[in-house]
Amino acid sequence: MSKGDVKKSVVEKKVSVQRNLEALGAKFYKEIEQGVFPWVEMRSRSIDNIFYSPEYRQYILGDKTVRRSARVISHLRPFTQMVWAAYFVHDLLQQRKTSTLRDVYYSAQAYDIAFQDQAESDNIITDLETVVESPRESFNVYPEERSAVFGDLTIQYTIPGYENRRTNLSSHPDGMMIGPALTESQFIETSADKVIVIEKGAMFTRFVEENVHKKFNAILIYTAGQAPRSTRYFIRRLNQELGLPTYIFSDADPWGMHIAMVIISGSANAAHLRELTTPDAKWAGVWATDIINYKLPSEQLNEIDIKRLKELKSDPRYTGGLWQREIDTFVELKRKCELEAFSRYGLTHIVDKYLPERLKELG
Amino acid sequence: MSKGDVKKSVVEKKVSVQRNLEALGAKFYKEIEQGVFPWVEMRSRSIDNIFYSPEYRQYILGDKTVRRSARVISHLRPFTQMVWAAYFVHDLLQQRKTSTLRDVYYSAQAYDIAFQDQAESDNIITDLETVVESPRESFNVYPEERSAVFGDLTIQYTIPGYENRRTNLSSHPDGMMIGPALTESQFIETSADKVIVIEKGAMFTRFVEENVHKKFNAILIYTAGQAPRSTRYFIRRLNQELGLPTYIFSDADPWGMHIAMVIISGSANAAHLRELTTPDAKWAGVWATDIINYKLPSEQLNEIDIKRLKELKSDPRYTGGLWQREIDTFVELKRKCELEAFSRYGLTHIVDKYLPERLKELG
Repeated sequence: MSKGDVKKSVVEKKVSVQRNLEALGAKFYKEIEQGVFPWVEMRSRSIDNIFYSPEYRQYILGDKTVRRSARVISHLRPFTQMVWAAYFVHDLLQQRKTSTLRDVYYSAQAYDIAFQDQAESDNIITDLETVVESPRESFNVYPEERSAVFGDLTIQYTIPGYENRRTNLSSHPDGMMIGPALTESQFIETSADKVIVIEKGAMFTRFVEENVHKKFNAILIYTAGQAPRSTRYFIRRLNQELGLPTYIFSDADPWGMHIAMVIISGSANAAHLRELTTPDAKWAGVWATDIINYKLPSEQLNEIDIKRLKELKSDPRYTGGLWQREIDTFVELKRKCELEAFSRYGLTHIVDKYLPERLKELG
Repeated sequence: MSKGDVKKSVVEKKVSVQRNLEALGAKFYKEIEQGVFPWVEMRSRSIDNIFYSPEYRQYILGDKTVRRSARVISHLRPFTQMVWAAYFVHDLLQQRKTSTLRDVYYSAQAYDIAFQDQAESDNIITDLETVVESPRESFNVYPEERSAVFGDLTIQYTIPGYENRRTNLSSHPDGMMIGPALTESQFIETSADKVIVIEKGAMFTRFVEENVHKKFNAILIYTAGQAPRSTRYFIRRLNQELGLPTYIFSDADPWGMHIAMVIISGSANAAHLRELTTPDAKWAGVWATDIINYKLPSEQLNEIDIKRLKELKSDPRYTGGLWQREIDTFVELKRKCELEAFSRYGLTHIVDKYLPERLKELG
């Protein structure tokens, strides 16, 4: 992805996806007119075509492609489904409405397009992502909202009915939800010089109460566990469009570590996309070594935790020194702990001591 | 609960809880000075003291009480824990900080107060709710945030650093999170004449996009499944302080039905509280009969669904005609369906047809 793409506004990207979809439809029409069975080609998402790219610092697809053609009887069903999906999301873009994977599944029934279950329709939407080389949010299929943001960033909405209206994301201290309106918005102005991403609601609220946004000039993001895709997309935009260094805080266990990793390097099943990762974001804690150094209350790792650590140990995304050191420390220590464990030293300890020390360390 | 209590602002309620806690502490001191073992009395929360009240339309505690005294060795541990918890939350109120159940558990370690696990500390907080007869939110122990609100309601914050600042809850179309700041806020002005509560994020977003807030003069609430306590508290405030009729939309299955019921009549384990229910709120759908009347795509009920329906059938909260009719229809039909199922007739069908028909029906 070129730097130019990064600067393209989300709305411009949507327009270009819309044009791609129209070009796809025009191609099919032309083929039919010429007496050729319409077909489409895309990169293969099979496991033997997924590679870890040290350059992109995420999984990417290799050069293998698959072709779906209306000529092949076994292709007819997925081909028709995809043509319908392309039609449906083009309609969404034109009408400027948003939808969800679940909605897509039910909407198909209005057109007598058969999907056996939602897994089948989800897969077709992923096919479409692969064909247009753009995440489904760019054709208005969004995940459920549950994450939030708080901090000094003035945005300008672009969604219908809100065009040109502006809001500052510090206007509601419980947090503003990250949904289609925010994802599409233009970034106007900020005094922030960093982004702090937090897994837990309790810590997000603590950070707001302790004025971390002011004391550390930070935009705060609450992911509510594994960050939804639109939140990862939003974090990437903050990092790339505004050039803000990004720090991620999660629980000290393999699952918390992986919440950070997915924000940084994405997942294997999004190997066909480039818009959901923030390779320069940093996992800021809680580290296994913090359990020792900060004398945090901790719990025994269970068998599933240990099995997961072994998997991560050989995961190509985890090759960096910090990751390997922390995995080894977890295994050795056999302990895990939560962000809230800092409350052992008083509610504000995490903000007064840990946060500044860690930010300095990561410099 | 008298009408006067309803009108009392949340901040005033917190002040009165703070006074109650101080009175409790003063009582203990006095007893010690008089050479008496300090003790506390509260209503029993054991199953034989929980009754359904048709008057309050929720579970309430009966007259049985339990007494905890420092004189009884087996009481010493829970008594000490509760005295510490009372001290800790009083400190929260004084410092105007908020906390969570998880935080309370870890914070105890800073004071060398032993809790075996979080279940034990959660239970002590519930004891404290019972003693001060007020929900834990009134002493600043909040649940994780994940629900949101959208609509024309101007609020004025009361939390530190935001005093006298106002926001209109329609200023961010993805929704504003419902957390401590919103829960404590004063309601200043609204043009809304109803509240619509929605279980699913997809439908919440759909309702915002289709301007339900304008077309139906509604404040929209997104519960993200089972409504967190502070959201139930907020819905009650909208209903009681602003006199807004409240309609709840959830999936057509025993679980969706129960999401509505818990907002309306609460749960047995909050029988000691009155602030978490909205008895006048109405379950607006999706009903079992809607599956038939609106020809909605549906799925087979599984065994757990059917078992749950049998439980609800004899639950005292479900005695009303609508509830019994719908439970019977579910059992007969053996089908369930989701809010998103309306997309079968186009994305806006639920707003264009179903919503106005249902609101008219419920009058």
